[in-house]
Amino acid sequence: MDKQTLRNILKEFADGKLSIEETIGIISSKGILHLGHSNLDVERKFRTGFPEVIFCENKSNHELLDIVNALIQHKHNVIMTRLKEDQVKILKNSFPDVIYYKKAKMAFIGSYPGEKIGLVSVLTGGTSDIPVAEEAAVTAELFSCNVKRFYDVGVAGIHRILEFKSEIEGSNVIVAVAGMEGALPSVVGGIFGGPIIAVPTSIGYGANFGGIAPLLSMLNSCSPGVAVVNIDNGFGAGYMASIINKRIEDARKSG
Amino acid sequence: MDKQTLRNILKEFADGKLSIEETIGIISSKGILHLGHSNLDVERKFRTGFPEVIFCENKSNHELLDIVNALIQHKHNVIMTRLKEDQVKILKNSFPDVIYYKKAKMAFIGSYPGEKIGLVSVLTGGTSDIPVAEEAAVTAELFSCNVKRFYDVGVAGIHRILEFKSEIEGSNVIVAVAGMEGALPSVVGGIFGGPIIAVPTSIGYGANFGGIAPLLSMLNSCSPGVAVVNIDNGFGAGYMASIINKRIEDARKSG
Amino acid sequence: MDKQTLRNILKEFADGKLSIEETIGIISSKGILHLGHSNLDVERKFRTGFPEVIFCENKSNHELLDIVNALIQHKHNVIMTRLKEDQVKILKNSFPDVIYYKKAKMAFIGSYPGEKIGLVSVLTGGTSDIPVAEEAAVTAELFSCNVKRFYDVGVAGIHRILEFKSEIEGSNVIVAVAGMEGALPSVVGGIFGGPIIAVPTSIGYGANFGGIAPLLSMLNSCSPGVAVVNIDNGFGAGYMASIINKRIEDARKSG
Amino acid sequence: MDKQTLRNILKEFADGKLSIEETIGIISSKGILHLGHSNLDVERKFRTGFPEVIFCENKSNHELLDIVNALIQHKHNVIMTRLKEDQVKILKNSFPDVIYYKKAKMAFIGSYPGEKIGLVSVLTGGTSDIPVAEEAAVTAELFSCNVKRFYDVGVAGIHRILEFKSEIEGSNVIVAVAGMEGALPSVVGGIFGGPIIAVPTSIGYGANFGGIAPLLSMLNSCSPGVAVVNIDNGFGAGYMASIINKRIEDARKSG
Amino acid sequence: MDKQTLRNILKEFADGKLSIEETIGIISSKGILHLGHSNLDVERKFRTGFPEVIFCENKSNHELLDIVNALIQHKHNVIMTRLKEDQVKILKNSFPDVIYYKKAKMAFIGSYPGEKIGLVSVLTGGTSDIPVAEEAAVTAELFSCNVKRFYDVGVAGIHRILEFKSEIEGSNVIVAVAGMEGALPSVVGGIFGGPIIAVPTSIGYGANFGGIAPLLSMLNSCSPGVAVVNIDNGFGAGYMASIINKRIEDARKSG
Amino acid sequence: MDKQTLRNILKEFADGKLSIEETIGIISSKGILHLGHSNLDVERKFRTGFPEVIFCENKSNHELLDIVNALIQHKHNVIMTRLKEDQVKILKNSFPDVIYYKKAKMAFIGSYPGEKIGLVSVLTGGTSDIPVAEEAAVTAELFSCNVKRFYDVGVAGIHRILEFKSEIEGSNVIVAVAGMEGALPSVVGGIFGGPIIAVPTSIGYGANFGGIAPLLSMLNSCSPGVAVVNIDNGFGAGYMASIINKRIEDARKSG
Amino acid sequence: MDKQTLRNILKEFADGKLSIEETIGIISSKGILHLGHSNLDVERKFRTGFPEVIFCENKSNHELLDIVNALIQHKHNVIMTRLKEDQVKILKNSFPDVIYYKKAKMAFIGSYPGEKIGLVSVLTGGTSDIPVAEEAAVTAELFSCNVKRFYDVGVAGIHRILEFKSEIEGSNVIVAVAGMEGALPSVVGGIFGGPIIAVPTSIGYGANFGGIAPLLSMLNSCSPGVAVVNIDNGFGAGYMASIINKRIEDARKSG
Amino acid sequence: MDKQTLRNILKEFADGKLSIEETIGIISSKGILHLGHSNLDVERKFRTGFPEVIFCENKSNHELLDIVNALIQHKHNVIMTRLKEDQVKILKNSFPDVIYYKKAKMAFIGSYPGEKIGLVSVLTGGTSDIPVAEEAAVTAELFSCNVKRFYDVGVAGIHRILEFKSEIEGSNVIVAVAGMEGALPSVVGGIFGGPIIAVPTSIGYGANFGGIAPLLSMLNSCSPGVAVVNIDNGFGAGYMASIINKRIEDARKSG
Repeated sequence: MDKQTLRNILKEFADGKLSIEETIGIISSKGILHLGHSNLDVERKFRTGFPEVIFCENKSNHELLDIVNALIQHKHNVIMTRLKEDQVKILKNSFPDVIYYKKAKMAFIGSYPGEKIGLVSVLTGGTSDIPVAEEAAVTAELFSCNVKRFYDVGVAGIHRILEFKSEIEGSNVIVAVAGMEGALPSVVGGIFGGPIIAVPTSIGYGANFGGIAPLLSMLNSCSPGVAVVNIDNGFGAGYMASIINKRIEDARKSG
Repeated sequence: MDKQTLRNILKEFADGKLSIEETIGIISSKGILHLGHSNLDVERKFRTGFPEVIFCENKSNHELLDIVNALIQHKHNVIMTRLKEDQVKILKNSFPDVIYYKKAKMAFIGSYPGEKIGLVSVLTGGTSDIPVAEEAAVTAELFSCNVKRFYDVGVAGIHRILEFKSEIEGSNVIVAVAGMEGALPSVVGGIFGGPIIAVPTSIGYGANFGGIAPLLSMLNSCSPGVAVVNIDNGFGAGYMASIINKRIEDARKSG
Repeated sequence: MDKQTLRNILKEFADGKLSIEETIGIISSKGILHLGHSNLDVERKFRTGFPEVIFCENKSNHELLDIVNALIQHKHNVIMTRLKEDQVKILKNSFPDVIYYKKAKMAFIGSYPGEKIGLVSVLTGGTSDIPVAEEAAVTAELFSCNVKRFYDVGVAGIHRILEFKSEIEGSNVIVAVAGMEGALPSVVGGIFGGPIIAVPTSIGYGANFGGIAPLLSMLNSCSPGVAVVNIDNGFGAGYMASIINKRIEDARKSG
Repeated sequence: MDKQTLRNILKEFADGKLSIEETIGIISSKGILHLGHSNLDVERKFRTGFPEVIFCENKSNHELLDIVNALIQHKHNVIMTRLKEDQVKILKNSFPDVIYYKKAKMAFIGSYPGEKIGLVSVLTGGTSDIPVAEEAAVTAELFSCNVKRFYDVGVAGIHRILEFKSEIEGSNVIVAVAGMEGALPSVVGGIFGGPIIAVPTSIGYGANFGGIAPLLSMLNSCSPGVAVVNIDNGFGAGYMASIINKRIEDARKSG
Repeated sequence: MDKQTLRNILKEFADGKLSIEETIGIISSKGILHLGHSNLDVERKFRTGFPEVIFCENKSNHELLDIVNALIQHKHNVIMTRLKEDQVKILKNSFPDVIYYKKAKMAFIGSYPGEKIGLVSVLTGGTSDIPVAEEAAVTAELFSCNVKRFYDVGVAGIHRILEFKSEIEGSNVIVAVAGMEGALPSVVGGIFGGPIIAVPTSIGYGANFGGIAPLLSMLNSCSPGVAVVNIDNGFGAGYMASIINKRIEDARKSG
Repeated sequence: MDKQTLRNILKEFADGKLSIEETIGIISSKGILHLGHSNLDVERKFRTGFPEVIFCENKSNHELLDIVNALIQHKHNVIMTRLKEDQVKILKNSFPDVIYYKKAKMAFIGSYPGEKIGLVSVLTGGTSDIPVAEEAAVTAELFSCNVKRFYDVGVAGIHRILEFKSEIEGSNVIVAVAGMEGALPSVVGGIFGGPIIAVPTSIGYGANFGGIAPLLSMLNSCSPGVAVVNIDNGFGAGYMASIINKRIEDARKSG
Repeated sequence: MDKQTLRNILKEFADGKLSIEETIGIISSKGILHLGHSNLDVERKFRTGFPEVIFCENKSNHELLDIVNALIQHKHNVIMTRLKEDQVKILKNSFPDVIYYKKAKMAFIGSYPGEKIGLVSVLTGGTSDIPVAEEAAVTAELFSCNVKRFYDVGVAGIHRILEFKSEIEGSNVIVAVAGMEGALPSVVGGIFGGPIIAVPTSIGYGANFGGIAPLLSMLNSCSPGVAVVNIDNGFGAGYMASIINKRIEDARKSG
Repeated sequence: MDKQTLRNILKEFADGKLSIEETIGIISSKGILHLGHSNLDVERKFRTGFPEVIFCENKSNHELLDIVNALIQHKHNVIMTRLKEDQVKILKNSFPDVIYYKKAKMAFIGSYPGEKIGLVSVLTGGTSDIPVAEEAAVTAELFSCNVKRFYDVGVAGIHRILEFKSEIEGSNVIVAVAGMEGALPSVVGGIFGGPIIAVPTSIGYGANFGGIAPLLSMLNSCSPGVAVVNIDNGFGAGYMASIINKRIEDARKSG
């Protein structure tokens, strides 16, 4: 455990957020919580500023509840992605105060972030890209970002994007979600000077090939200032946007 | 040989464009000219309105000269594509009046089309797409189209396209040539209501994969009214544009 | 909103097709209708001559009804593609006069085009390509084209194509739909001098790879005058054929 | 060494084609000739009726001469494929009576087959497929087949194929060589009832992808009676055609 | 209709196999039977010696019955491939004397071939390749070939193949069906001198990629005398084997 | 049957593990047990030291029971992989003493290995790789290896791996199972000097492409000492690890 | 031209950086400089804060000098990437004060940025990734970032990365460049909480496939906080890092 | 630095292989030697038992000499792979006692291993696979293995492999190198019970696709006991074989 991480843990202890027993538990665990099937990185929150997030797609109900319980016991906020309907039911039974984000297929248990900071704008090319965009948007909100949504502003009607130009200019970072030919980030990159996180989606038909077409488009974007995350990876884009947004606002505060 | 083709041949004979011997030669050949290595489709001009074009990339000098001579003897205009420098030299020796289009890597021998008709606009995303675009443009010109060129109007600076909006509106058909992420046809499709022939180019680096990235983009274009030809296939696009342009102008004349 | 679009809107107003309130609504909306989940491009009809079409594959019932209602209120014909059975039921409940095209998986609400113009021929290689071909054919009919269907005329029995030669010659444009090895457009291109829109289908087995085999074939067609749309994209082909057909017939009228 | 192979060897001995020493050498070697770098299968001629062929592409001059010498000492005809210009020179120095097939990039040393039997027809789609076709044709001739060549009869001018229909009908087997969209075997399969060996070539540009486009076309051929060999593998097709041709003619003789 | 085809039809008439009305029907139809959804090639039997076969995978029940009825009325044997369970039930209701081949997913209506000729051997690498192999074997049997089956003789236990060496030697042609690494045809090619038709299967897991792995293996086979059909295409292999087998046996009879 | 195999069989006979009748049966069968649908390699146990394993994925219930019965009659331990739930039920009915490994989808009938030897460590990157890892671990245990499991030790929290460093050092061989970016083997290769068998898993989303991403990563590992098996092929990895482990321990005993 | 851009131009005029003539020139050009072959986006500097950069790979000498001259006349700093040796010579002749970065294949003409701000760390997995990394590093420096280089710290020796842990912690953003299996960003993402821009390189052999292997790895990174640019796209990564770094430091100043 | 590594270093010191200064140098360097462009892992020899090897393909002459010098100063044996001719010349100038392995493109400087242990057999399918095989064989020899070579024993002549059966049985591990269809490891796996390291080569033509065909074959091998390294990665295979061989022989000694 490096010094900075230790310092962060002790600060939470000093601030009363952690009891002495909890503090001892975390430090003596060397940051790993062994659950047999999973090794939770409970130190991550203190090391990187963001807690570990549970990717639920291939978890059994038993494993899921196990992990949620363990994180709650360690005073972690619990963020879950890729939830299936039946997992949501089971969660609600055990944790009645869970917040469920249906479109984003996400859920949250814990103390919701108070004041939000900065601005992340999330754009989609079409309506069918919205679920992926919501995963990005909710992630950013849970990580304390202000979020604005601009959906269905694809390039076939270029005036739809230009209309929003002034509104998106104040963003610290933009998340651009698109399927089809994936041209949205390039066009946005021509009118916005900040960083753009591009998310290809698997929505489309024919030679979309499960998202490869927009993925290649985005990697070959003629606009610099565009970086790409995995196909349909709304969470990854929201996370990346959040840490950039946070670093900017932290600098503003400390400036 | 179908009746319409025969009618076209006889019309040229009646118009004095073919001598009686030449007319007999074409009809009795059943439309095929046997050169041993090649079977020239000399009937094509009369059947489809456009002569066969020589793709020079894998021809030996001997074969090339053979074919050119045969076509000239049959009163064909000779259009050559994908010429290499040394082939050009040899052509110039044998046929001093050959016209050479350096950027397009094309050449022409024959009676240059008189009046040009209609309008085909050729656009490129970047400067490095120009050679492919020139192949399309010269092809369309040799097939009697008026051609306008709008080069380096890619989507990263969207205002570059919007500036040309009114100029391209009068086109019968647009050829949109682009490498990188290949978004040009989609954006153009949002502001132009006519048919767009998209040409992906192999220009780019990294995950362009020799033109696959823009090819997939164009196939997945969110703008309808876009159809695609092969990677770097400027000739195919110019040809397709020409027959559409011709049909429109023929209808106008006959209307 | 550009001048030509404005001119088209005002012409419809002058013709009594739009009331004064509707005209005001469209102009003041800057052409975009905000539905929260979707931004409808209601200006498209006036800008390109063809209304926006609803791709239904990933729409919720709620979103679909929302969009249909909005378009009807704006005096648009409503064309829907890729409908699922249950979506059709819900549509019929709310809009009893909907016309449903079962094979094409399409539906239509509005004033059916009166006089049809020109000629678009739709060919398929086999019987299993018919659903894709129907999408193309119905699209072209809804966009006012006369359409002729020639189904199951694949290249293994080459005499089946030759038999239809004289019948297809009068077409303004041909849509050639084929799976398997996708050779149909090449063969048709040898006997037809006009533009051919090729549609690869995902029908086949083994190394068809969801339509990649015929897609590559068509892109590599040895016949010029062939351009390709996305795999199974009957709508795109029908649309492309319609705008070419319309331009030719418009020229004929204005000639 | 199985009995049939032994029988064949002894028959050659009885016929005086092998001396007693040579016969002993072959039998005692268990059919393998160890050259250090290569293990020659000298028994193959007696086991399958066709001698081993030398693929020269990655052989050093030293290895090549070594193998040729060894085969000659064992009374084998020597057939070489994929020869480079400099390898040919070196061969000519050591073996003045080598026959060199320039277009096919092949060479032969030995007693040229006397009477040829049956009929193999070799067709190409274009002129640039000729080198691959020649490899097939020369292979078949060296394996004692009568061969007819029909070059540049591609599908864009379908009447070029139909013209040859009666000529190819007498073939035992057809080799169809094509690049571009690779539709030739399908079309030929519609007019010829015998076996067709299809050879995709890497000739083409854009999305030909080094022969993948025609390879996939041929595998997906809608004509049954088509089987495919590797891209540019003229030798493999010629060999396959030869053994089919031989089996038919052997049956005719023994019938 | 070419002369040879006409000759074959008239021979069947002379032999009493066709009535005068049927003969007139076939000749006047120009060989095509128009069913609206399908154009049946009823001349094929007379042109190539083999009737058209019905690929049932994407046929509706209505279309299937339609085609079967039409073929029966034209005195064709009816061979069906890729049948689903429910299609079989419907067939049995309408045509009680249908023969159903469960493993091969094929069915047959008509006069079963009398004397079988020659020999086709069908080998598989594993037990899970058997359904594809059965499609090949039943096809060959319905086309009058004697067939021997050697299943589960894959290369991991090389002695399993060697054991059958003498048994397969008498075959006119071998069909080698294999998934996994698809090495079977190469190994068989080392011990059998006749033509081998290789069929890759999609059986396997991981990087089999739906049959691409064995397909590539077979195309790259180091044994000459191997040609490949599409993935899982047992019918194509059986058909190819049948026409080779027939040509050999026809030659034997006529020899 | 080679001498060493014969020696091994006779040793089992001498040791009383095989009766005289059984011994005769095995030797006279030439090592192959013909079941019609399958050819069991019953000699394998004696030839390689490991019995044949039943891959159940495409077996019918009938075939499965057939094979199990045959192996039991030949005194083989029966190891089954890729079992489906319904196959397990049927097995339990017929063979009540079957041991079922739910996570690994494997089953075992026979005499469980007595003393285990050596050490194989099985690591996974995440929790969703566990089923594949269990297939490897159970295989190794059934082949008499001591096995240690280290699950969910992926590279995002590099200290999780370092923590286990000393524990894995005593392993003879490591199996590293990972999806996502598949970096686990490279990192482990930096701290462990022995052989590592890498298993890519198809777990992941977006551009994982069914395991291709980790497969390529592992093949390109910058750590030497890594070799790769097929995607999700836990059995293959466990088998490979077992024979390496056995050779080491055999050498230790014989040393 | 939007208001913010205009404001930025006028500010430079007020600050004396632009003369009145230059200011008029830029505003009246609508931000586009027409050079025939190229349309320079001279407004970009004022719109996004970063000037357009010249990608030299497919530029002729003539075009290159043309563009450089035009940018200099418009008071732009000129940044060039992907320079070839001969282009450098020609540049040096015309512009003696050009700065050439050999390893990065970049050049610079203009007023070198004064004070550098923030911190960007550039890491490589191996020594052969250095040219790509230098492109990123020099780009970031020319855009006024402090840059630290950590080369050859790949994951096979994990302690090499851990050693630098404290040094990289102060970075605003990290650029991680890697070929081979591309695991570097994942491992760095486990110890660094800020944004990581990952650059796959085409360095490697075998199944690296020109950078696809590390590209897929990086897209599938199990560490969140990683976004990816195109293969070998050092410039794109440096640019992205620069705008993030600038936004953070601008916030610090304005905070 | 872990305890075992430290123990190994101190043992070399005690044995007089390292001077006190050298021992101090290695320990105090924390195992990393910083050369600016490279970070050498000089601790690797003591940690894993095998020194770091220099992959020369993308090294400049300067970097190469730098690294060699550094390793020599630290008493390392220097093993170099992928050497180009000009690099060899420069090496010979500076280090006259370098041993150069021309076929393997490798070189060695240092104290050649004394007694060799165990047995590694290296097999190739054809003669053109020999360079890759030599890289494997020389690597294994430099790492103290006895090596036997069996070249050109491919599966088309299966008796060539069977002939060597008894000779390879004594091997601890086999390296099987093959291009074409890559079937060699499967066939060998049927007759050899120990671990097989398979190396696909890029040798071949047509659809070999730079080694993908044999790579997929080997991954799908129906023989268990096969694991695969990267295409053409002879070094990786030789290394893997060496550590397995060493572990077996170490166990034998210590047993």
